[in-house]
Amino acid sequence: MSNFVLHPDLERDGVLIGNFQLSRVLLINDSNYPWFVLIPEIPDTSDTIELSKIEHERLWEESRIFGLAIMKLFNGDKLNVASLGNMTPQLHVHHIVRYQSDPAWPAPIWGKHPMTPYSELQLKRIRELFTSAELDNFTAAICNG
Amino acid sequence: MSNFVLHPDLERDGVLIGNFQLSRVLLINDSNYPWFVLIPEIPDTSDTIELSKIEHERLWEESRIFGLAIMKLFNGDKLNVASLGNMTPQLHVHHIVRYQSDPAWPAPIWGKHPMTPYSELQLKRIRELFTSAELDNFTAAICNG
Repeated sequence: MSNFVLHPDLERDGVLIGNFQLSRVLLINDSNYPWFVLIPEIPDTSDTIELSKIEHERLWEESRIFGLAIMKLFNGDKLNVASLGNMTPQLHVHHIVRYQSDPAWPAPIWGKHPMTPYSELQLKRIRELFTSAELDNFTAAICNG
Repeated sequence: MSNFVLHPDLERDGVLIGNFQLSRVLLINDSNYPWFVLIPEIPDTSDTIELSKIEHERLWEESRIFGLAIMKLFNGDKLNVASLGNMTPQLHVHHIVRYQSDPAWPAPIWGKHPMTPYSELQLKRIRELFTSAELDNFTAAICNG
């Protein structure tokens, strides 16, 4: 959509996985957790409630479809969903697959452990998961390499 | 709704503020932040994605209405919305009004500071805010005292 520019923090930490009708989907490049963000491509938006009623409904339906998919793909114990954005003010909704064995469990993940980037091979495999998953209204990013 | 019983952690920490059609609304008794939870009254539900498509849509519309209301009532700088539940597995969606001057800013609030209960007078005033607010499909709890 016009005038939407990804915030530099998300540009730095995220790897494009694909797009829903409203939201761009990034993988956060931290191999401690399967951690994704949905970013509605609406300029100048910081809080969920700033979306129109229709956009808000669409965001959360995309969240539902995506959350179901990642809990299945990554076989998680618990899904964490959050819109915080106190430090990165562009609206982004975290979707994190949690395991009782993960390094931050049962605490929230933010600020717990340094980010540990994936290898190129790991990133390729995660991208391929989404290329083969059939998600409603989701267009997977093209896998490179 | 039948068979729904509030989790003891939420019973202990929460003060009833009112009910939407789907969700019970509690104030968390911690005066560090205006901190509320929406709890869909559906038994045996832990993750947002376990709700039916219709229930999920309703929860998030209630979140939108409630989030707009509390950001106005409490004049916040940022709204934090989150479904975590790693420790308290009954589905509850945090709605926290954040200020750049609050004790945890800009970090997420969980685990940052000991809970500081409100006085009875403070609780009465917060309940009264919701009694006088006109929120779509929201029934405020009756104020005592």
